[in-house]
Amino acid sequence: MLIVLNYAGVVVFAATGALAASRKQLDLIGFLFFAAITGVGGGTLRDLILGQVPVFWVREPAYIVVCVVTAIVVFFTAHLIEWRYRLLIWLDAVGLAAYSVMGAALGLAASGSPTIAMVTGTLTATCGGVLRDLLAEEPSVLLRPEIYISAALAGAGAFTAAEAAGLPSYASSAAGFGVALALRGGAIQYGWTIPRYRSRPGRNADDALKKR
Amino acid sequence: MLIVLNYAGVVVFAATGALAASRKQLDLIGFLFFAAITGVGGGTLRDLILGQVPVFWVREPAYIVVCVVTAIVVFFTAHLIEWRYRLLIWLDAVGLAAYSVMGAALGLAASGSPTIAMVTGTLTATCGGVLRDLLAEEPSVLLRPEIYISAALAGAGAFTAAEAAGLPSYASSAAGFGVALALRGGAIQYGWTIPRYRSRPGRNADDALKKR
Amino acid sequence: MLIVLNYAGVVVFAATGALAASRKQLDLIGFLFFAAITGVGGGTLRDLILGQVPVFWVREPAYIVVCVVTAIVVFFTAHLIEWRYRLLIWLDAVGLAAYSVMGAALGLAASGSPTIAMVTGTLTATCGGVLRDLLAEEPSVLLRPEIYISAALAGAGAFTAAEAAGLPSYASSAAGFGVALALRGGAIQYGWTIPRYRSRPGRNADDALKKR
Repeated sequence: MLIVLNYAGVVVFAATGALAASRKQLDLIGFLFFAAITGVGGGTLRDLILGQVPVFWVREPAYIVVCVVTAIVVFFTAHLIEWRYRLLIWLDAVGLAAYSVMGAALGLAASGSPTIAMVTGTLTATCGGVLRDLLAEEPSVLLRPEIYISAALAGAGAFTAAEAAGLPSYASSAAGFGVALALRGGAIQYGWTIPRYRSRPGRNADDALKKR
Repeated sequence: MLIVLNYAGVVVFAATGALAASRKQLDLIGFLFFAAITGVGGGTLRDLILGQVPVFWVREPAYIVVCVVTAIVVFFTAHLIEWRYRLLIWLDAVGLAAYSVMGAALGLAASGSPTIAMVTGTLTATCGGVLRDLLAEEPSVLLRPEIYISAALAGAGAFTAAEAAGLPSYASSAAGFGVALALRGGAIQYGWTIPRYRSRPGRNADDALKKR
Repeated sequence: MLIVLNYAGVVVFAATGALAASRKQLDLIGFLFFAAITGVGGGTLRDLILGQVPVFWVREPAYIVVCVVTAIVVFFTAHLIEWRYRLLIWLDAVGLAAYSVMGAALGLAASGSPTIAMVTGTLTATCGGVLRDLLAEEPSVLLRPEIYISAALAGAGAFTAAEAAGLPSYASSAAGFGVALALRGGAIQYGWTIPRYRSRPGRNADDALKKR
């Protein structure tokens, strides 16, 4: 289950990296570079922080091959797609959900601490996209008005809570994945937000979520 | 002493991260993210470089709790503060001073080399703020006209020199902290600079510092 | 041979970092910072990914001394040079070639996988420059129209192929260095490109290289 999630995360994030390269009109090697950076970036940071080195794609080079194939497919098909940015955003949502569970699972296994599991889940899920936007000089997903980091945190939190409740691993993974994807999907489709900082915030995050 | 400095560094840098989030009008989770990235970013890089993994906050999740609490406090109080950017800059100065000593102490302990101690001190002190500015798309502290990196380097250097002179650990720490804070504080308050590169620099750094 | 390449990479990348600092009119410490970040940045990421910690410059502080000396020389001489940006680009090309071989050699030794060798070669060669441009807020080399990442990949590939063919180490190194420098040099001097993504790419990369 975790291996499936990891490959799913790599493929969809690699595709978003390649789509960013297509928006910048780079060459094929540029597509490969952005696909690889985005596909394995979050997981690389996670492995470094947890001290699991060499990082996962050095131990298992198939992940790199997956990024290369994804980049090539996108290079030769992206021009067929009218709604490229929308596709990028939705693939990013799937990758975010997959990686929030993966990151939390590995963080929990390595540290035993639910706090750390939620941090590594959130970091793994968001850092690939952050890196992609930073290097492609695109507006950062971090600063978008709708729910993004929150979805990753909620997914990691749901997984960690389900594990603590003794659910089997596939159920916890499905719970985390579902929560993250539902929140981020709602944010994309319906513009869900939680209250942002203003001079007088006055309300709290839970109220606003219920009101929608 | 070092533990106090590390927590002090985490708290003040976390507060600057949360203040950056408030300037970008992010939601509470955005505050948490920026507080955590800025609070533990410099120390994380230091631990990775020195090979001390898992990094400090995975070994001691209390650091993350400190970032979370700091972010929540800032989220609900920042609107009361008129001079938010000035506060950010001063807190950043305290964090810079604390982390320049921390980074130098850990670098010296791990490598035995004063050169490495000065590098890890400077990196630890500056990288949290650099990361914050990069991800918040704010003008980088690195490129500001006044003394910044120099204060971190001077603090790390003062600590390393005091250690080499055989002073007790608390005295070396105080020396490093004081030197860094004095230099950076003078830069903030009085605009202290050292000569910048121009077509014909002609003068050296020491002259200009004396002249002020 | 590898040690020579590593020092050559550090010196030329450090010089490009210092030249970027001169374009931003920073002070001497700013020159040191950018020289060090650019000089050892790519190799630091390589060592972290391969799990070879503490990273190379902590084990061998002479690399830092080399960056410091380079930065000081550039600080006092850069104003004599009219064609500073052109020099930066050419030094960057030499560093790219040296590091693509270094990164591939260490990646191959650590993992035994040619795929990984090509990835670490490309990453080591490009990340110092990427970091420099990101922190100096300059247009990223990644997004330049001409061949850049491709030259690093080709150099790493040539080295890996030559090693696989059983050539002695100095010959493989020379092959990789030569291929990377020739490609990047051609890109700088004659504007060589490979086809970039367009709505209908239609041609492949090899055709375009032959046509030039």
